[in-house]
Parts: sequence; C-alpha cells; structure tokens
Amino acid sequence: MESSSLHFAHRFDQVSGSAIREIFKVIAKPGMISFAGGNPSVTALPDEKVSELAVKVLKENGKALLQYGATEGYPPFVEALHQYITETVGFQPEAVLPVTGSTQAMDLLCKALIDPGDTILVENPSFLGNLQCMRLYQANLIPVASDEQGLLPEDLEEKIRRYQPKMLYTIPTFQNPTGRTLSFERRKAIAELASRYHMIVAEDDPYRDLRYSGEKLPAIKCFDTDDWVVFLGSFSKTISPGLRVGYLSGRPDLIRKCTVGKQSSDVHTANLNQAIVDQYLRQRLLPDHIRAISSDYARQLDRMLGHLQEISGLVRFTKPEGGLFVWAELPENMDAKALLNKAIEQKVAFVPGTHFFVDGGHENTLRLNFSNSTLEQIDQGMNILKDLILQESRR
Amino acid sequence: MESSSLHFAHRFDQVSGSAIREIFKVIAKPGMISFAGGNPSVTALPDEKVSELAVKVLKENGKALLQYGATEGYPPFVEALHQYITETVGFQPEAVLPVTGSTQAMDLLCKALIDPGDTILVENPSFLGNLQCMRLYQANLIPVASDEQGLLPEDLEEKIRRYQPKMLYTIPTFQNPTGRTLSFERRKAIAELASRYHMIVAEDDPYRDLRYSGEKLPAIKCFDTDDWVVFLGSFSKTISPGLRVGYLSGRPDLIRKCTVGKQSSDVHTANLNQAIVDQYLRQRLLPDHIRAISSDYARQLDRMLGHLQEISGLVRFTKPEGGLFVWAELPENMDAKALLNKAIEQKVAFVPGTHFFVDGGHENTLRLNFSNSTLEQIDQGMNILKDLILQESRR
Repeated sequence: MESSSLHFAHRFDQVSGSAIREIFKVIAKPGMISFAGGNPSVTALPDEKVSELAVKVLKENGKALLQYGATEGYPPFVEALHQYITETVGFQPEAVLPVTGSTQAMDLLCKALIDPGDTILVENPSFLGNLQCMRLYQANLIPVASDEQGLLPEDLEEKIRRYQPKMLYTIPTFQNPTGRTLSFERRKAIAELASRYHMIVAEDDPYRDLRYSGEKLPAIKCFDTDDWVVFLGSFSKTISPGLRVGYLSGRPDLIRKCTVGKQSSDVHTANLNQAIVDQYLRQRLLPDHIRAISSDYARQLDRMLGHLQEISGLVRFTKPEGGLFVWAELPENMDAKALLNKAIEQKVAFVPGTHFFVDGGHENTLRLNFSNSTLEQIDQGMNILKDLILQESRR
Repeated sequence: MESSSLHFAHRFDQVSGSAIREIFKVIAKPGMISFAGGNPSVTALPDEKVSELAVKVLKENGKALLQYGATEGYPPFVEALHQYITETVGFQPEAVLPVTGSTQAMDLLCKALIDPGDTILVENPSFLGNLQCMRLYQANLIPVASDEQGLLPEDLEEKIRRYQPKMLYTIPTFQNPTGRTLSFERRKAIAELASRYHMIVAEDDPYRDLRYSGEKLPAIKCFDTDDWVVFLGSFSKTISPGLRVGYLSGRPDLIRKCTVGKQSSDVHTANLNQAIVDQYLRQRLLPDHIRAISSDYARQLDRMLGHLQEISGLVRFTKPEGGLFVWAELPENMDAKALLNKAIEQKVAFVPGTHFFVDGGHENTLRLNFSNSTLEQIDQGMNILKDLILQESRR
C-alpha cells in the first residue's frame, strides 16, 4: 500500500543499495559479458561432487541433518574447521563459529560490537556489501589510506589515535576491489597496532586460497599475540557461494556474543550445507579442486592483464597475484560511469570504482572481474573496453 | 584472552540467553525423555526424499544453485511460494521473500522497523527466541494479555493507545508456548485494530498446517484490508528445521527494506535448500507428508492429554487442536523450576513457563512438547511427572 506510509528504522537513513542493484539488473540480461560480479566461474562449481556428497551425508546422518542443529555449528564441521584453519590458514583457533556465508560473520561482529556512532576504520576502497552492513549498524566509517602494499600503517595509527575505533575492517589478500595484497611487514604492524590500542581487527580473507603466483603470506591473525584479530573465512570462492557456508574465528568471549546474536538471526547454518563442506575438508578434496580452478583463473587473469597492458599509457592497473579482481584507473578526467553506459550498449559490464569508496569520488576508477568470463569473452569484452577508452581519450 | 576485556554493544545489555541454554545442555544427555524442545519427530524428517530431491535439482540446475543467487530468492521457489500462500494460507501475496528460517524473518522485520526504544506489543507468554530477537533490537516489549481464545482485543487496543507501538508480535495458531489458537472473531478484530491505528502485525504462523482436529481458520492476514499485516511462514515444522527455509510476505515497501537488510545479513538463503522446498511445493508432496506426520502427532498429543487428565484436579492445561505444545499450570504455590530439577534426576525434561513471559513470574507454569517423544516415552515421562506433582502437592 502506497497510501499509508511506514516509518522505517533510522539505520536505513544512509542506505539505499540502489546504484549497484541497477548495474546488476543490467548485467543479468542475456548476452552480456560481465566483468562486474565476484562470481566464481560456472565451470568451477562442483555440482556433481556436491550431489554425491549430499547423498552420502543424508544417508549416513540424514535425520540429524534435517533436525534442528546447534547455533555453535554441526559438531563434525566445527572439528574439521579447527584442523583446516590450523593447517591451511596457519593459526591455532581458540573458537570457531560456522556462519551462513562470511557476510553473516560481518553482520554478527557488528551486532556484537557496534553501537550507533561507534567508529569502524575501513580500508578504502573496500567491499561494498560489508560497507552497507556496517552502515546498517550506524557505524561511523572512517577510511584509511592504502597503496600498492595495502593499508598504510602510518595512516592507520593516526586514525586510531584520532577516532578511537572499535574495529578495523580489512581484506588483506587479493583485496576486493583492488586485487592488492597486504605485505608481510604490514600484516605484522597491523597486529601490533591492534594489540597496542585495543582495537578489534576484522580480517576478511575469502580469496586467500586463490593464489596464482608469488609466495603465500601468513594471516594477520598469525601475528596476533593478544587476541584482537578476528578471522573471517569463506568457502564461497573455493567451493560454492550458493551453499552459504563461511566461518568466524577469534577470542571465545567475542565468538560467544556472536553465537547469541546468531541464535536470533537464523538459529543455525543449515546442517546439510555444513555437512557438505565438512566432507570437502575431511576427504581433503579442497587442494585438488583449488589447484584446478586456480590454473583456469590464472589464465583468465593473464589474458585480462595482457589487454590492459596494451593501453598502459592511458590506464594504470593492479597486477594481482590471485583472487578475482583487477582494479584500473582511467585518465583523471575520464568518468567510469559514462564509460559503463557506453560499454553496456555493446553488452559489456563492470563496476565503477566510486561505489567502493567510503566517501565516493575517484570517478575514474573501475573494478574488473575475470573469473566469470571465458578467455574468448575476455578478449571480446576487453577489446570493446579498450576501443571505448581510446575513443574517449581522443576527445 | 580474558586479560583484555571487550566492550560489547549495548543491545546485549538485556540479553544473556543462558537459562534456556543450560536446560538444553541437560536435555542433550543420552537417555533423557525430553518434552522441552520444539523439534519435529525424528520419524517425521524425510531424509530419503530430501536426498532424492537434492540429486534431482542439482542434476537439473546445479550450476545455478551453486552460484550466487538473488537476495530476493530463487525465482522458481518465489513463484511456488506465491501459489502455495494463495491456495493454502488463503491470501493473495503482494510480495514474498524467502528467508533462512522464519527466525530470520523476525530479525529482518526488526531491522527494517525498530529503533532502540520503539515499542513492540507481544502476546504474553510468547516464543523465547523471538523475544530475544526483539530485545537485541532494544525494543520496548509490552505484554498483551490473552485467554483461552488467544490475544484479548480489548487489552490490545488499550495498549496500542497507551504505547503507540510500531508492531504487534503474535503466533495465532497453536501458539508457542500455550498451544492456544486465536478465534475467528479476534483475528478479524486484530486486523481492524492494525488498520485503524497504523500498526504492523507480525503474524508468525509456523504451526498452522499441523492441525489434528477442529476447523481451519483464516490467517489474520486474510482480514488485512489495508496492508498492515506481515505473514511469517516456515517449513521447519512440516519438512525440516535443519534446512532453514521460511518466508515473509507483506507490503512491497516493507519486503523491499527487509531485502536490503538481508543483503548484508547473509546475501541470500542457500539456493539448494530453496530448491528442495520448491520441489515439495511443485510436486505437491506437502499435503500427504503433513497428513502422515499429523496422524502420529495427534496420537502423541492425545496420550499426553490423557495423562494430564488424570491429575486435572491439580493441574490446569490447554487442549490444543494442533501444533507441538501443551501448556500446564501447576497449583499456585508449586515451582516448575524445582519440579524440573527433580524430573531431570529421573531423566525427564520440560521448559518452565516463566521463561516465556516478557516480565517473568508465573513460576507454576510449564510447556510440554509431545512431538519429539514416542508414545512409550510419553507414558514413561508423564508417569514420572505425575508422581512428582502428586508428591509435591502432598507436602
């Protein structure tokens, strides 16, 4: 009914979510080459294996899986996660909570920690979805500067002193949207700052397993001597986003609060979905699967970088060692939104970079996803983008 | 680290969730006869059918199911829900949002509507989990009185005038914890009050399909001429709670806000789980399945009521026409918590009624679940409870 208007909660005053939604509506049209999403490649999604595992776990333990589960998680999966984190991420987890995708981890962290007006420092630019999440908790979002090596510890310390934040939000590895990776030294420095100033660090690391070159780096959490870092993990980029399984690991008192918050968010993450991912960990299926998809993604990334290299006189761009995204800066006077409108006419889409900045601006930037396009689509789409950029530069 | 203490958000000031957790830890012990949970019977959980459907949907549409889905829901399921609501619940939905269990529906409604201090009127006693949810949004919870016919419209109108609430929360059919059902006339009256005073009614109706006797009643939503009622539905009690699939239906502007809220809660409900429930609706499997489990539940309810009848001189109790719960009142001076402690020693559990009241008290009440115990367990457990109550009454 439009006639009788409702008063919505004030947490929505700053949130509309509309700009990006419009882009994603356009992308969904058939025939579109989309560099816009953060979707895994269709070929990377293991539908046959998931089907086989679903049958197995339902046969072995179906009644328990279909019954209510504990908010704390499906016990075998919690156990498998402990081992996975220890062996693969590289720290000894004190407490782990399975969640309904790592987006829920961010929601629960905010629920546990953030009162309206509390300050959260955020790497800038950053992941849109979680910026919206923090805004819905009416947090005061303060951007922290970054460069090729990720977050700048000097700017971080200055902002900590000035704003006394509750939390820092960062994606240290193959960052969304820039593809950049925080250096070893800075990981250490951030853990030290967190400990010195008693600030929670939300380390959101969904891309870490998708490394195509270079050396694996320890998580910030590995340098966390005093339990201020919370690690957010996901199986969305390695197994399936549609299953909605992620996890949260950190100090027990905080995980406990998140668990109470989760009780009234969704009671528990669906047992069947936890049990399927559990099988991936238990049967040690993940390394081979990741190896297979990484070799494809590496080729797709190379192909995209090759195209960008051809216009490197006009466009600056990142050269990620993994993940799903390349970040590009057009000449200063060029507008990525205008470029998008022209690109869409030729059935190519991407996300203008301005949306990822806490305070907007940076109209000449854009994010390009390479994982969800074939090499042919990358050629075709990048040729169109290159032409449009060259045309625009001559005006 | 216990050494460096964290400041949690103020929304947790009123929420501990510990009393009930302690009970449920005890219940989980082997050999316990539990009248405490709200769990479907193990025999009611369709593990083989879910396995068969999982294989089918993953074969037919696996890549899409494992990919990111829309926050608005898996399109075939949204379509099937529209039809199911129209045919089975009995109103024409304007907008429907699939959610991760109907607990998430309540969370999203509060997210959309409730600022700290806003008043929510709640039927008293009511479902614990959703009371906690509303408390985490720092709502001002005001109890509304009810009798054998459910909520009292007179008390409701008085409370509306006095508190100008944002929302009323009610479970009209086979209520949790009392098993009572709101009468036809009162359903109509509540819809009229909502419209007159511009108050949202959250109609939480997870038990409506589990009717063992009497006439089916229209939802409050069916009397909603002016779009103030929001209907919360669930498949947890009819198919499986472990799958975490429910839905929310109401006015489009409110469903839209809930959708934006859901984007940063968990992005979307797992596609596989939506697709499995979709098959239940599309293949029209639900009526037969509900008929089968209802005939078992009816017998279990009868058996429990038979036992209570034997001590009807001491104990007042409800005689529900469906659902999962019977509500009992012991003699005024008898304490259900003390009774529970003695019952647990003999491996019988239930939930003391005081926990379901917004303002506590009512120490002589208790909730008994019959769905998750066999007839033999009901005999055994109720014999123990009867003996304990009789002993206590002689002291």
